[in-house]
Amino acid sequence: MKKVKVHSPGTVANIVCGFDILGLALSEPYDVMEVMLLDRPEVIIHNRDIFNLPTEAEKNVAGVVLLSVMERMNNTIGFEVTVEKHIKPGSGIGSSAASAAGAAVAANYLLGNIFSSDEVVQFAMNGEKLASGVKHADNIAPCILGGISLIRSIHPLDIVSIPAPDLFVTVVHPQIEVRTSDARQILKQQVLLKDAIKQWGNIAGLVTGFMKNDYDLIGRSLEDVIIEPVRSILIPGFDELKVKCKEAGALGGGISGSGPSVFMLSKDESTAKAVGHVMSQVYEQIGIDYNIYVTTINKKGVEVVSSE
Amino acid sequence: MKKVKVHSPGTVANIVCGFDILGLALSEPYDVMEVMLLDRPEVIIHNRDIFNLPTEAEKNVAGVVLLSVMERMNNTIGFEVTVEKHIKPGSGIGSSAASAAGAAVAANYLLGNIFSSDEVVQFAMNGEKLASGVKHADNIAPCILGGISLIRSIHPLDIVSIPAPDLFVTVVHPQIEVRTSDARQILKQQVLLKDAIKQWGNIAGLVTGFMKNDYDLIGRSLEDVIIEPVRSILIPGFDELKVKCKEAGALGGGISGSGPSVFMLSKDESTAKAVGHVMSQVYEQIGIDYNIYVTTINKKGVEVVSSE
Repeated sequence: MKKVKVHSPGTVANIVCGFDILGLALSEPYDVMEVMLLDRPEVIIHNRDIFNLPTEAEKNVAGVVLLSVMERMNNTIGFEVTVEKHIKPGSGIGSSAASAAGAAVAANYLLGNIFSSDEVVQFAMNGEKLASGVKHADNIAPCILGGISLIRSIHPLDIVSIPAPDLFVTVVHPQIEVRTSDARQILKQQVLLKDAIKQWGNIAGLVTGFMKNDYDLIGRSLEDVIIEPVRSILIPGFDELKVKCKEAGALGGGISGSGPSVFMLSKDESTAKAVGHVMSQVYEQIGIDYNIYVTTINKKGVEVVSSE
Repeated sequence: MKKVKVHSPGTVANIVCGFDILGLALSEPYDVMEVMLLDRPEVIIHNRDIFNLPTEAEKNVAGVVLLSVMERMNNTIGFEVTVEKHIKPGSGIGSSAASAAGAAVAANYLLGNIFSSDEVVQFAMNGEKLASGVKHADNIAPCILGGISLIRSIHPLDIVSIPAPDLFVTVVHPQIEVRTSDARQILKQQVLLKDAIKQWGNIAGLVTGFMKNDYDLIGRSLEDVIIEPVRSILIPGFDELKVKCKEAGALGGGISGSGPSVFMLSKDESTAKAVGHVMSQVYEQIGIDYNIYVTTINKKGVEVVSSE
């Protein structure tokens, strides 16, 4: 096998109360990546989109991932990758994770799937390191595995899949810039114990709600008393958006990753569409451009769609 | 019906990483309580044990619970209760919760179970308020409901039962005094965000492990980076005890409630017994008296054993 084409999905990290430990994969949007195996130690990058991402391998998220695989193979092979990005960089729905995870899964596939899923996650985390300075896995893990992932620990890596009922996800991406590094810098390094206790009650409730298919419990647990109050000030219209989406029937939701995208979970498609309608009304009124996705939780993760 | 006899079990609050939100019920030890319905507004208390607990209703944990039920019934009835306590006060395995929960369940039973389980928990919490100054439910809820309880929120009360596989519990109660109020006072009111993140990863892992019957995940998640490092200094031999119990095969464990009891979870009975043996060795060597219980998770909670 010499060539593989994959779809690498967007992801929602944190899922409101699970800062740095939870993430879910979206059915849409997804990047399309074609990766070819080379018989020489080189990583070549072609971008087929409008985002002007770097083409030098060591400055490109997919590039550093492929370089790390190449090194692991003792520089006996290389890769040529063509990226058609549909997940806008900086949107907060895991654009860099999609590049990193898609590259890692494709490379492993071309090599005969010799690496475990934990190893594939480790390769992909090199891309997140380049993108944000931190080797986090709350986008990478669900992007690769699909569904909802718990990253119980990074050192050592301990990823757990959380079963969940069918859920619809509405995402709005207001076209403003929130840099991940800024969103991280404004967080306080200390939190009140009483707030931490509330937060871990909600996290335990959310995970239990997912596993018991208890939609009401999921809704009650989608509350973040630590990160959201600080970060939401970077997102115009956030409070109004949240109130109106819940009025429209959403179970709950909040900032996707470090924003600016905001996501809402719903029990059925018609509610998810109504939530999308409310989102568009809010940003029409404020006068900010936006994209909206009405989608589902993607249960497959990065998907090989063809190979030759 | 005029009279009911209940068994009210000991409980382990916190379950290591779930400070203030998780608790489990033990099959042993349990208190035996007989409650009789009176046709006058009075609460009479008889203690049939060696602990010299107060017999004035308003100073007795079961008493204040029964008074609160009496008031709710517009003082049209009263109760006479006989308590045979087997759970030593101050042991850290929910002695006051057993008195409070047993009284609340028995009173509700005598009144034809007119109150919901949430209301019964609320009545019982009045007893915890008297005992520790705080209306917490992490002993009360599992004591009443059995199994493992998540208290997602106290205001409003939101209690969720967590399904779990069969587990054996070994508890050692070193005969030293740790006052709940002292154990609470030494806690820091602020915690590092990075520690809080570790903690909620472990809580999510523990809940997932219980619900997936994943013993290894349960073991890996039984880690507390916030409360245990502070509180364990009050318990002689704690670090050594923990290491040796894990060497003996325990999945993990830690301080029960605010101590001084220490509990360990095991997959099977022979391991739980071996863990008990190790516990006794540690306290023999230190020269502190102790009690040991080798038991299981109690799935029923407060149990009505006879009525007339």
